[in-house]
Amino acid sequence: MAGFWSKLFGTDERPSSAQTAKDRLKVIVASEQGLGRRLSQDKIDQMKKEIMQVVSRYVRGVGEDHIQMQVRSEANIEMLEMNINLPEER
Amino acid sequence: MAGFWSKLFGTDERPSSAQTAKDRLKVIVASEQGLGRRLSQDKIDQMKKEIMQVVSRYVRGVGEDHIQMQVRSEANIEMLEMNINLPEER
Repeated sequence: MAGFWSKLFGTDERPSSAQTAKDRLKVIVASEQGLGRRLSQDKIDQMKKEIMQVVSRYVRGVGEDHIQMQVRSEANIEMLEMNINLPEER
Repeated sequence: MAGFWSKLFGTDERPSSAQTAKDRLKVIVASEQGLGRRLSQDKIDQMKKEIMQVVSRYVRGVGEDHIQMQVRSEANIEMLEMNINLPEER
């Protein structure tokens, strides 16, 4: 279990170099009984925008194209996973 | 890795019965420690909390009294975790 988050972040795969290092944020919403009952696609899209707005208040230069979303499931648990790659600071 | 979510949800421990079935939700906002280079810890915590607030506004049925929050960390990853026990929808 120790490496789960590292795996999710992909830090196991390649050593981060100072040059290419990016900061990442991950938001996960997981539900035992399926997300569909709680979250419609419309809401997911809207939520994504609002999360973007929050992040961009803290980190300059973040746009919607920096966020990737996917839905995964494992056993009876469904997850909405959002990966936010924060742009390099200039 | 297969049992990670089941473990987080504690579904290994006791079988869920139809009568007491509640939907459990978990929301995690995780960041790599590298984020500390550009944002102070205070700001990171605040941003994560704001993201949580956005998520809870969109997920139907979440009230503040259902929420437990905790901070966890693993390797170089810091997580703000929100556990929500939702009552059955009527």
